[in-house]
Amino acid sequence: MNVHGQPYRTIWEHPEKPGVIQIIDQRHLPFRFEIEDLLTVEEAATAIRDMHVRGAGCIGATAGYAMLLAAQEACGHIAPMERLMALSEQLLETRPTAVNLRWAVTRQRQALEVCPQEEWIAKARAEAEAIADEDAIACAQIGQHGLSIIQALSASKDPGQPVHVLTHCNAGWLAFVDHGSATAPIYAAHDAGIPVHVWVDETRPRNQGARLTAWELAQHGVPHTIIVDNAGGHLMQRGLVDLVITGTDRTTRTGDVANKIGTYLKALAARDNGVPFYVALPSSTFDWDLDDGMMIPIEERSPNEVTVMSGVSHPGDADEVTIHLTPPGTCASNPAFDVTPRHLISGLITERGLCQANEASIGALFPEK
Amino acid sequence: MNVHGQPYRTIWEHPEKPGVIQIIDQRHLPFRFEIEDLLTVEEAATAIRDMHVRGAGCIGATAGYAMLLAAQEACGHIAPMERLMALSEQLLETRPTAVNLRWAVTRQRQALEVCPQEEWIAKARAEAEAIADEDAIACAQIGQHGLSIIQALSASKDPGQPVHVLTHCNAGWLAFVDHGSATAPIYAAHDAGIPVHVWVDETRPRNQGARLTAWELAQHGVPHTIIVDNAGGHLMQRGLVDLVITGTDRTTRTGDVANKIGTYLKALAARDNGVPFYVALPSSTFDWDLDDGMMIPIEERSPNEVTVMSGVSHPGDADEVTIHLTPPGTCASNPAFDVTPRHLISGLITERGLCQANEASIGALFPEK
Repeated sequence: MNVHGQPYRTIWEHPEKPGVIQIIDQRHLPFRFEIEDLLTVEEAATAIRDMHVRGAGCIGATAGYAMLLAAQEACGHIAPMERLMALSEQLLETRPTAVNLRWAVTRQRQALEVCPQEEWIAKARAEAEAIADEDAIACAQIGQHGLSIIQALSASKDPGQPVHVLTHCNAGWLAFVDHGSATAPIYAAHDAGIPVHVWVDETRPRNQGARLTAWELAQHGVPHTIIVDNAGGHLMQRGLVDLVITGTDRTTRTGDVANKIGTYLKALAARDNGVPFYVALPSSTFDWDLDDGMMIPIEERSPNEVTVMSGVSHPGDADEVTIHLTPPGTCASNPAFDVTPRHLISGLITERGLCQANEASIGALFPEK
Repeated sequence: MNVHGQPYRTIWEHPEKPGVIQIIDQRHLPFRFEIEDLLTVEEAATAIRDMHVRGAGCIGATAGYAMLLAAQEACGHIAPMERLMALSEQLLETRPTAVNLRWAVTRQRQALEVCPQEEWIAKARAEAEAIADEDAIACAQIGQHGLSIIQALSASKDPGQPVHVLTHCNAGWLAFVDHGSATAPIYAAHDAGIPVHVWVDETRPRNQGARLTAWELAQHGVPHTIIVDNAGGHLMQRGLVDLVITGTDRTTRTGDVANKIGTYLKALAARDNGVPFYVALPSSTFDWDLDDGMMIPIEERSPNEVTVMSGVSHPGDADEVTIHLTPPGTCASNPAFDVTPRHLISGLITERGLCQANEASIGALFPEK
């Protein structure tokens, strides 16, 4: 999507230096827009591990391009295949629980293992581009399927009145290669000339909404308003939300959704107020082995994320400072995700189309699973 | 309650300088515990207007004591009654919508109007003390009535296992003269030796939970853990919350509750998980003229409260700094309260006892209304 009026992806190969990978270093957003060059597997591993990139699709694509770097490094080595495998292991260790990371590295390994060494680089480049393109295409398809929901809501409004969409956290293009999941229908509607306005939950503790989603939407010109996570229920009670769309970190085959902490509260408020609540996801997010969302283990993150906050001292500053919010010594608990049970979800928006959040409807859309 | 091991109220007359009022200047909590001397009505008006004191009961008591200052100042004046009225008008203008402020000033005016001028100061002192004592006694009674709920929950647990109470915002003793409303049953249980543990919602945007409730509980020695406002639903899903108690800013005669933004979301989660959800209030918080909570006007506060945050640079620092959280120019919306409809509320805890959140049950407890 657009940054400073130019279309961007989150990752691409350098247009003038083949073999050099470029990423948006997301750590500094929204205060500084910085593009980082990745020249080695070591640099790519650092970018993944230290969260210069984040989000399932974006991590997968970065791992795909990192394997191009690995192929380049291995080709000059005395034992190329051993080196390639060692470098790919190094990548796998960066974020052990990231499903897309493992998937992309394995896909590249399998492609290169059956390929003559002199074709490794071309093959790895083609696979990396395919991984990135497939992610972007899936998100674009999610956008088109979700667009139908926004179009229907827009048609029920007075001409020119925006459809108000509430979203939580950042399931935006920064988390993928392009378009995003939850944001894809929003961008599709905006680009189609349908007036949309987004309520952006700030999403404590890491403020991905206030930092990333607000930045994305502003750069692409989509009207939006930041709210604290407490405010969504009130807005729904007053009829100010037409639709909720969130992403998901993991979805059971029965339609239960684990997503950023606080998603469940918005789903409850949506049901209480008759507001449609949709979850947008590429099908890679399904966990086909699980049938009960409450079985999904919930990561407990550092209490520091709750008691400390980062920002800039003056609007426009590029360098962040950190402040402490609580009395010294205060204990904090920081569960990172919660589970929204399927009965609170109006539907799932996948790259293949819409389905209900239940086993039969999901199974009908993905019969091969 | 206790501060640094000593019992405190939020306001009192100086023990060695009669006619001087002392308050805890709450602006600097939790980073600095500062007691301010109020010598004039002007100083008291500033303390109320600029929120050195806040919370219905605490504002009412400060207004009561400010009228003692007014009586002292008026007695030396050439036209004492005109001066007294002018000073009381000055107080009324500080926070025009604060019901307890108007009530306390009017009570003092009515007492002084029928009193010989040479007895004004003694009379104003007696009324100020009565207003403060009545507030503290009402909160203590709320504590005793709410204690029965915690006792019953504790009895159903294994010995030594704490009752986990979740609270939102600060309905603590800092908002009253002593004990608080939502916190009163918690302090009563703790002081009675019943193990309690409090989940403290940080309560964005102004963070009254992370700043004030956490400080209060720590000073009184009550175990507690800070969480982001997003986390409560997840904790309830996992069986980690036994009881929710909040305060209220305004309660209809039918039992609908307007309280700090986000309260409604916790009430929805409590109902979804079978967790009892109680609202604690002195009966002065009832609005006997209203029968529909959705008719309560909701104050929209400055967007700066959402986009900016205050804290200290290093743990233990006394001076706060402010940081900006969002991309420059981001719009924010900041509704300060939401309405929790009566059907989500398990019961009300008042100074006269428990009742259900409906007109008949409230009317039975307050038949004179």
